[in-house]
Amino acid sequence: MSVGSSLIPGLIDRMCGVVGPDHVLTIPDDIAPYRFDGRGEGGGVPDAVVRPDCAQQVSALVALAAETGMRIVVQGGRTGLMGAGLSRENVQPGESGGDIVLNLDRLNRHIDIDPANRTATVDAGVRLSALNAAAAEHGLFFPIDLGADPSIGGMIAANTGGARLLRYGDVRTNLMAVDMVRADAAGTMLSLGAPLWKNNSGLDLKQLLVGSGGSMGIVTRATVALQPLPSVQMTALVALRDADAALPLLLELEAQFGTLLTAFEGISAHAMTAALTHVQTLRAPFAAVPDYAVLIELSAGAALDAAMLEEKLGTVLEPMMMAVDAAIVDIAIDHRGRLWAIRHALTEGLRAAGAVVACDIALRRGDVMRFRSAMAARLGTETPALVPHDFGHIGDGGLHYNLVWPRHAGPPDQAVMDHARASVFACVVDEFGGSFSAEHGVGPRNIKHYARFVASDVRRLSGEVQRLLAPVPLGRIDFGTME
Amino acid sequence: MSVGSSLIPGLIDRMCGVVGPDHVLTIPDDIAPYRFDGRGEGGGVPDAVVRPDCAQQVSALVALAAETGMRIVVQGGRTGLMGAGLSRENVQPGESGGDIVLNLDRLNRHIDIDPANRTATVDAGVRLSALNAAAAEHGLFFPIDLGADPSIGGMIAANTGGARLLRYGDVRTNLMAVDMVRADAAGTMLSLGAPLWKNNSGLDLKQLLVGSGGSMGIVTRATVALQPLPSVQMTALVALRDADAALPLLLELEAQFGTLLTAFEGISAHAMTAALTHVQTLRAPFAAVPDYAVLIELSAGAALDAAMLEEKLGTVLEPMMMAVDAAIVDIAIDHRGRLWAIRHALTEGLRAAGAVVACDIALRRGDVMRFRSAMAARLGTETPALVPHDFGHIGDGGLHYNLVWPRHAGPPDQAVMDHARASVFACVVDEFGGSFSAEHGVGPRNIKHYARFVASDVRRLSGEVQRLLAPVPLGRIDFGTME
Repeated sequence: MSVGSSLIPGLIDRMCGVVGPDHVLTIPDDIAPYRFDGRGEGGGVPDAVVRPDCAQQVSALVALAAETGMRIVVQGGRTGLMGAGLSRENVQPGESGGDIVLNLDRLNRHIDIDPANRTATVDAGVRLSALNAAAAEHGLFFPIDLGADPSIGGMIAANTGGARLLRYGDVRTNLMAVDMVRADAAGTMLSLGAPLWKNNSGLDLKQLLVGSGGSMGIVTRATVALQPLPSVQMTALVALRDADAALPLLLELEAQFGTLLTAFEGISAHAMTAALTHVQTLRAPFAAVPDYAVLIELSAGAALDAAMLEEKLGTVLEPMMMAVDAAIVDIAIDHRGRLWAIRHALTEGLRAAGAVVACDIALRRGDVMRFRSAMAARLGTETPALVPHDFGHIGDGGLHYNLVWPRHAGPPDQAVMDHARASVFACVVDEFGGSFSAEHGVGPRNIKHYARFVASDVRRLSGEVQRLLAPVPLGRIDFGTME
Repeated sequence: MSVGSSLIPGLIDRMCGVVGPDHVLTIPDDIAPYRFDGRGEGGGVPDAVVRPDCAQQVSALVALAAETGMRIVVQGGRTGLMGAGLSRENVQPGESGGDIVLNLDRLNRHIDIDPANRTATVDAGVRLSALNAAAAEHGLFFPIDLGADPSIGGMIAANTGGARLLRYGDVRTNLMAVDMVRADAAGTMLSLGAPLWKNNSGLDLKQLLVGSGGSMGIVTRATVALQPLPSVQMTALVALRDADAALPLLLELEAQFGTLLTAFEGISAHAMTAALTHVQTLRAPFAAVPDYAVLIELSAGAALDAAMLEEKLGTVLEPMMMAVDAAIVDIAIDHRGRLWAIRHALTEGLRAAGAVVACDIALRRGDVMRFRSAMAARLGTETPALVPHDFGHIGDGGLHYNLVWPRHAGPPDQAVMDHARASVFACVVDEFGGSFSAEHGVGPRNIKHYARFVASDVRRLSGEVQRLLAPVPLGRIDFGTME
């Protein structure tokens, strides 16, 4: 595929007329950075990368696509993991009137914080870090906690979750309003919702954009809910006797601390070992790596104090250390986020340990450990080369059930790895009623699993809704995909 | 309209074949109870009330309606305020193949609590009180706090909010999965979503049912999120110098108590006076009724204790009482919910005081008091007979901006009252960007306001989505309504 090959003549000029010639990129070196995403993997080579800076320009580009058959893929901060924001690969000649990436980085001028309302209205290209910096000036934050720094539009498209979903929910929960451009002949601009905490005045159509991977319409501006920044935060890393001790601990913490519990993350022994082995900046929190550990975070306003929280947490945890066959083996306490460094280093640790099969799954909370046991036994038989290195948000049933093909085991066998991933998803969905996609969303990299695990009647209806909302094909996901 | 008048011959027998003859009501005395709702007002007289007890029966009834042109209105617990669950009035002869009310009271056998997952899967006809009774056995509750006792299906259809939305969100936020029957030729049964806290595997179509007033499909079963029942709860009724002192107090409490703040309700002097005057069981909390009062609720798990919370609250509030021109005039503290009795008595107080114009509105939190001032001034000029008696969930910007035509002012003038309501909504939406429907949803009683205040492009698209999802007309709301 050569650059500009399938664009009809004159289209580049017309796009330049919309956004200005500096913002239509066609030279391979200019395009290169826009071909890669959060996984460091590349998509296809688009005919152009176009960078509008306002909703009117987005609308004009959509109208141009509708007129010419040019295909648009919307791109946010390029931190996504499922490829939804990358240009299409392997486009057949004649299949397309050209492929462009519509990158929203420049649509980032407005960050309007309403401190009384606890909301922020931001352009879609604004990064999470920029939003949080602006919100922090008012003692507020956007409570979606992620390792990456995506754009707000991308967060809506992926419906990102993260480590504090247990307390604050996902993007969907915290989204009040969007301005969008429809993928129709005119590139119609619509405002959906309002900057209101309570609003119940008809169908909430903006919900159809959430988690749609940019295939249902283009969000140009959004209003999101903010939360008060906690004044007091403490974390405890708890070494457990075994993984089965995690759920009773979670339930006890919820009864004892209610809404003060803001994270409950699980770390398997293999995952912690990989991080401690390969990430040199980490210090080992315990004398020995425990069979299973959980990271607990409590957060509170200024009226409570850290010493009191620590004392109360001690009161709750200590009896669990004292019993015969005690559930808790050891505890590390921290007020400055040092323990989070271990949690955040796990992905790097796994990558250093070998080739990773990443499975972003969710289960009912009571099924998490049952699933781990069942799956470990099965993998031990089916694909013994792959070692589970799981960790994740077990307080909400989300699990990064990642498998590692260790470096010492020789070059990884892609077929075995693909088989293992399919086996994990089949077990999660078919046997446990869980999800093959907890928080990374749907994209070209997992659309085959969508087709396999989402019921055909739901996919059929989803495809009909997609064609109604976005009659001009947009993005990379066909929600009506049939096997 | 006489009973059974417009039903085609034999249809009653066929419905009896589906649900059994005991559950097809056609005699006026039998039908009468199903004609009234939460406002005590009646709808039209249906040809029959049909009471299925499972999804298969609901599906068969929908298929029958699709075949015969019979119109179905779905009815839950008859606590709604907008008439969405009542039979149509003034149906023109020949317009309809008959009208039935499909009442879901009998679809109430399953209440399955999953304590580890903190979820409940319940039949749509299960009442909120029954769900909470079952959840309480596990130390859990469904955190939508309402005065009424609706069915869960009705709560989804209205997307009810209530007094603790500030902390826990609305029904939408807490809904994980539904089983539904589509209004299509076959009465297709669909399962949407899963009992998972984190699930991001395609379009979330169930969102289209939330707040749809039963016009987009029929929910037969739902999985909802539960929260730990707080062990400690304290309420304070705070008498303010004036209404403008409420917002700074709210922001200070959020900074100080974070997620422990579970309610922040405002009460105007007129509303409190009406309740204290007319509801004999109430005791006056203060020597004099304050210009404005707020009810604060703090909730915590077992690790905190009430005395500590009270001390901390005192530490925060006392400085606000000490200053010259202090924001706080007086405080009443309570650990047993006595103060909530005042809040809950307000509606009864207003009704006793006169004829009520009820406006269920929402504003940005910073606009609530500005709106009150602007509106009071305008009403004083336009309709001096009507006196604002507002109260509500000002912590989330929700306001029951209710006007009273006092008994001593003679018989109420309906035209003046209708004009006042329209004036309130116009001010809320056009001048403040607020909502004419905060938490009661849309129904025949406010559809004209929907047509007036929701943008025509949004209504047009909503109507298209409705016809796609529910090709057989269902319920009483046409989301594509044009003026």
